[in-house]
Amino acid sequence: MAIVGFGNLGRGLARVLIEKSEFLRRTQGLIPRVVAVVDEHGAAVDEDGLDLRRLLRVAERKGTVAAHPKGKRGKSALEIIEGTEADVVFELTPTNIKTGEPGLTHIKKAMQAEKHVITSNKGPLVVAFKELDSLARRCGVEFRYSASVGGGVPVIGLAKGLLAGNEIRAIRGVLNGTTNYILTRMSKENAPFDVVLHEAQELGIAEKDPTLDIEGIDTACKITILANSLLGVNARLRDVRVAGIRNVRPEAIRLAREAGYVIKLVGVAKRDLLEVGPKLVPLGHPLAVGGTLNAVTFELDLAREITITGFGAGPQETSSSLLGDLIDIHRVLGG
Amino acid sequence: MAIVGFGNLGRGLARVLIEKSEFLRRTQGLIPRVVAVVDEHGAAVDEDGLDLRRLLRVAERKGTVAAHPKGKRGKSALEIIEGTEADVVFELTPTNIKTGEPGLTHIKKAMQAEKHVITSNKGPLVVAFKELDSLARRCGVEFRYSASVGGGVPVIGLAKGLLAGNEIRAIRGVLNGTTNYILTRMSKENAPFDVVLHEAQELGIAEKDPTLDIEGIDTACKITILANSLLGVNARLRDVRVAGIRNVRPEAIRLAREAGYVIKLVGVAKRDLLEVGPKLVPLGHPLAVGGTLNAVTFELDLAREITITGFGAGPQETSSSLLGDLIDIHRVLGG
Repeated sequence: MAIVGFGNLGRGLARVLIEKSEFLRRTQGLIPRVVAVVDEHGAAVDEDGLDLRRLLRVAERKGTVAAHPKGKRGKSALEIIEGTEADVVFELTPTNIKTGEPGLTHIKKAMQAEKHVITSNKGPLVVAFKELDSLARRCGVEFRYSASVGGGVPVIGLAKGLLAGNEIRAIRGVLNGTTNYILTRMSKENAPFDVVLHEAQELGIAEKDPTLDIEGIDTACKITILANSLLGVNARLRDVRVAGIRNVRPEAIRLAREAGYVIKLVGVAKRDLLEVGPKLVPLGHPLAVGGTLNAVTFELDLAREITITGFGAGPQETSSSLLGDLIDIHRVLGG
Repeated sequence: MAIVGFGNLGRGLARVLIEKSEFLRRTQGLIPRVVAVVDEHGAAVDEDGLDLRRLLRVAERKGTVAAHPKGKRGKSALEIIEGTEADVVFELTPTNIKTGEPGLTHIKKAMQAEKHVITSNKGPLVVAFKELDSLARRCGVEFRYSASVGGGVPVIGLAKGLLAGNEIRAIRGVLNGTTNYILTRMSKENAPFDVVLHEAQELGIAEKDPTLDIEGIDTACKITILANSLLGVNARLRDVRVAGIRNVRPEAIRLAREAGYVIKLVGVAKRDLLEVGPKLVPLGHPLAVGGTLNAVTFELDLAREITITGFGAGPQETSSSLLGDLIDIHRVLGG
């Protein structure tokens, strides 16, 4: 395996691979060997397998994996992807929803080098889903992106695998923990949006620039990915009609509650409709989850409604999905 | 494929296989061909594939598949299982939690004849889980029982597959739709248990003899299956400490609600504790689902908490799980 991108997510994955090494061997017959790790300053490469504990120490103290004895300062991700013997590449660089880069190029290069790709990066998926999906088929490699939607909640795998006997009529999701936290606090404290946003920023739940979350764009990215991967439509981010939560007033939340509803930022994907906006959800409906939880409801022809709920963010939770993808590839290929 | 047991579930599966034939071919490359169907009076066999539409008509009009032109009155399930060329046997006979029969013998015979087994039958699983699990391994066949817990909600598959990178610390579930319906109505109407049970019986939601549901035994069966299949313990039904909902009073429900809780019949499985009983669940927690819904929360080391919710009963919903198992076998074996 190679890990491209060694920020919070990449380091989180490395920690989990260390902790889970014995568990993965015992339960899955899977021995994870990381032969290359790349960050923005360079790479560390050892085809016999890097000592991840040492690599993490080096990266945290020196700011780059290139400071490792097996490190190469200035070595680029593309050089590493082309040159490594790794069979799986984890693409974990930051999301750019305009260009998809640098993830998009990394993923293409990895596929062309006949490596399976596992990514959490929404950028390449909203910019070039169909292209990447076709390229993976042509190159005969597996392409997995469970961690791009729902963090630790296996939304895509659930629909593609266990519910595969169903036709999906609609997908509705509370897909952004920050906005769900804000709406939940506004409801509990009868407090205005700006006050709660500020509080969330101080707690580190909302980012300093919270635009992507509160304007609904992060949710729209996830709806785009779900529509492409599960409904078979060819959708781009610009096809999603988006409204955020900035104009939601505490009075509206109170009135809704009196009528038996909560207001949630809900993304909807159907074959002929992609939209994101504040919606009324009945109290007691499985989508009406509070705090930073994510939840996705599938409307299905056989099972009717299935909802999956959990924590949508955090490096450890996201590692659960990255690892789930790795195990599934191992299982399908009978490795 | 062979279908053993042609009551509500077996017929529901047949209907779904008819409706989904083109969908399964297109999306999974899977062409379902049913070569034998057995009920309590006899069997219908055609190694070229039975016309399921016709078979359903015959079974509904004449009360048995044996009245089909390819039917054989008095032919037993064991003879069919031994003699058929089917590669997969669906065991869908009624549950007997004391002996596991006749399902238990059917499943063993099918495995010994090197057929994969898919079942919804809790009986064999609570009586002889480890024995069947070992036998499947020794015979080199797949053994799937998603439909035995959660009906259409893919509880077991989720934990075994997508969450396989996690260690499961605890499983908590609202696993019985009848008791959930009763508790929900008691809460909404401030009505006593007996009145609501009677109403549920008239609506066909509770059975005439509701003992297995309201005494918590059905939930205990599911907890036994989850503990065996997901926690690796060797548990029998008698290992579960069980209390039902007969003694839950409307006053208790009201007091709980005032404190921000609902009362649910919750099954708990941990490595050192198996129990079923009425429990307080915080309002807004994903387990606090109403009506006839089922919900299961997994407590995990990486993803923290994942909950899956949906409709736990009904032939169509259960067919979703049976079909999910079939697709997964097809996928893993690369058929």
